[in-house]
Amino acid sequence: MFTIEVRDHIMIAHSFRGPVFGPAQALHGATFVVDAAFIADALDANGIVIDIGLAHDALKAMLGPLNYRNLDEIPEFNGKNTTTEFLSKHIYDGLANAARAGELGRPGVELKALRITLSESHIARASYEAPLW
Amino acid sequence: MFTIEVRDHIMIAHSFRGPVFGPAQALHGATFVVDAAFIADALDANGIVIDIGLAHDALKAMLGPLNYRNLDEIPEFNGKNTTTEFLSKHIYDGLANAARAGELGRPGVELKALRITLSESHIARASYEAPLW
Amino acid sequence: MFTIEVRDHIMIAHSFRGPVFGPAQALHGATFVVDAAFIADALDANGIVIDIGLAHDALKAMLGPLNYRNLDEIPEFNGKNTTTEFLSKHIYDGLANAARAGELGRPGVELKALRITLSESHIARASYEAPLW
Amino acid sequence: MFTIEVRDHIMIAHSFRGPVFGPAQALHGATFVVDAAFIADALDANGIVIDIGLAHDALKAMLGPLNYRNLDEIPEFNGKNTTTEFLSKHIYDGLANAARAGELGRPGVELKALRITLSESHIARASYEAPLW
Amino acid sequence: MFTIEVRDHIMIAHSFRGPVFGPAQALHGATFVVDAAFIADALDANGIVIDIGLAHDALKAMLGPLNYRNLDEIPEFNGKNTTTEFLSKHIYDGLANAARAGELGRPGVELKALRITLSESHIARASYEAPLW
Amino acid sequence: MFTIEVRDHIMIAHSFRGPVFGPAQALHGATFVVDAAFIADALDANGIVIDIGLAHDALKAMLGPLNYRNLDEIPEFNGKNTTTEFLSKHIYDGLANAARAGELGRPGVELKALRITLSESHIARASYEAPLW
Repeated sequence: MFTIEVRDHIMIAHSFRGPVFGPAQALHGATFVVDAAFIADALDANGIVIDIGLAHDALKAMLGPLNYRNLDEIPEFNGKNTTTEFLSKHIYDGLANAARAGELGRPGVELKALRITLSESHIARASYEAPLW
Repeated sequence: MFTIEVRDHIMIAHSFRGPVFGPAQALHGATFVVDAAFIADALDANGIVIDIGLAHDALKAMLGPLNYRNLDEIPEFNGKNTTTEFLSKHIYDGLANAARAGELGRPGVELKALRITLSESHIARASYEAPLW
Repeated sequence: MFTIEVRDHIMIAHSFRGPVFGPAQALHGATFVVDAAFIADALDANGIVIDIGLAHDALKAMLGPLNYRNLDEIPEFNGKNTTTEFLSKHIYDGLANAARAGELGRPGVELKALRITLSESHIARASYEAPLW
Repeated sequence: MFTIEVRDHIMIAHSFRGPVFGPAQALHGATFVVDAAFIADALDANGIVIDIGLAHDALKAMLGPLNYRNLDEIPEFNGKNTTTEFLSKHIYDGLANAARAGELGRPGVELKALRITLSESHIARASYEAPLW
Repeated sequence: MFTIEVRDHIMIAHSFRGPVFGPAQALHGATFVVDAAFIADALDANGIVIDIGLAHDALKAMLGPLNYRNLDEIPEFNGKNTTTEFLSKHIYDGLANAARAGELGRPGVELKALRITLSESHIARASYEAPLW
Repeated sequence: MFTIEVRDHIMIAHSFRGPVFGPAQALHGATFVVDAAFIADALDANGIVIDIGLAHDALKAMLGPLNYRNLDEIPEFNGKNTTTEFLSKHIYDGLANAARAGELGRPGVELKALRITLSESHIARASYEAPLW
């Protein structure tokens, strides 16, 4: 099983609802360092999972609508807590759609799974991993 | 599959028995940077695996009896080599008990697995991962 | 010249004023990983610059009023851009006052300088360093 | 499931063939920071997966023929793109042979899988993981 | 004294002349993770040393002619060993010229010094730091 | 000003005397990740500060007598607290002697200063820096 993994980041504001979040119920923010892992059983004819440059571009395109935003104001997230783990799946969903649609430089069926990891600090991170098919 | 992972550390002394350990048979020590990963198939109603603050607290509580200790003097470890991989499972066992008992802010059956990783230096680490059920 | 340096972090929201900031003029946020370095010409009788545990406590006390906040709403920062470099000096000022007042476990005159470094992502950071006297 | 993971690195030159590689079709180079993970279901009588010192030696021996080389000139790689993912599997293959042959200080059947990760920069890495049997 | 520091990287091939370099006399390569630090005594009216986005752009522009190249073939480097420390100064020289010429979004005289650090692996790096005036 | 910096580590046991140390008065231990920086005003004829391989060897030679030891049993440290900052200077002293004696592959007078940094965890480190002459 082969994996390539690329890194980018976003800087966002948000707040959480629910007493479990304590002081994080107030409007605050985070830098999320985002690692996107693309997983395949076999390399293609070029000897790659997908092109690392293309992987960076796909991740940046996915992160664009989130970056420098107050996530509380994004309609798609209404009524949701945009936690680190929730955002991991949100980014997974976007990149999984691109992968299945063959937009990552390789037929979607040749990719197996994705794993998205968001580091919110030097001592905490979350991830979401799932098969594509 | 969702994962959250939190980091803490301990600073301990110990020695090993067995020629395979070479100079590490002498009393020496280590800083173990400990990452505890909590894994679940689904988020709870708050949009989290478990609360990251609670995860930090649970890990710190588990590490407390080890920190600033000579592990050779802890009766529970009598006759054991407290290797990096052994300690990974020891910490797993404690946190797994807490998870199964529902002490991590969520019914134990909603958690799936834990993974404990101990980095002993910038070039070596060990981990133990297992399902909770 | 001896230095000890301890690390903590804050998660904040803020916005900037001025076209140079481009999209960061919108409300967004950041995790700042904060390193506080305490510098002295000589060690004390215990063989330390200051106690590392105390240094952690002093840094955490300084960061408390900023953590989980929207910095735009803190009166002290009215009319200021709370940039990474601005916040480095803000934290320096607070810790420098504590150092000069002898609140760090050692007469202030025995400390020489502080350096505060804020990492806003894996690819950008800022710092402020200055003598205490 | 227990894992130990050790780190080393190589500094190589190479070039790629295929328009997908863009400017990387020219002769260039890379530092690959290599993590080799050794995975077992149970610890041995010493309380280890395999000896970490031996793991470092095995990885270094495997990397020796690649280090400070132009990979384009190594006959074994003729007609191949020595991508980060390709090299991950190449190193896996060598260490897997050593593991199966019992050269890692433990009967090969007691080891379960290997995972080799090559970081080519602070923002990109690749890995290959597979069972040994 | 304020500093901002931004990170990028290059992937190059090169070789060294001189017995001190041992196996590195052969054509090999490196990923250099490059940190560029911009140092000023005071912040500007926006509360910054220079804009971090502009700093990233300036560093990328400076690195472009080196990236994905065999440095042995760059005429400017004829007869030079393109060591990590040599390249640190080369990048310093380019960014220092830009700084002095006021191309970094601020009058050059308001900047004080630059420091360029190149990490060639997880265990070795070099830097060059000098005043601008 | 040019700097090269190399990394190694030691794993030691020790204890401290003095109430300021709290629980660290008990026998415990640490992994110290050690960075040794060699500083010069000019590069030599080969284009280097000193050879990075030689720097690694010199650091390893200096660390050898400390590694896998209980520092409380080393006569040279009798009556001393072997704190992170104390050990930084101890390692500085050894490497400074080597540098002044011309044992680092370059006349000692051509080297200007050394800086030794010991990271004791992901959140705390100490350093000692001083001119050689």
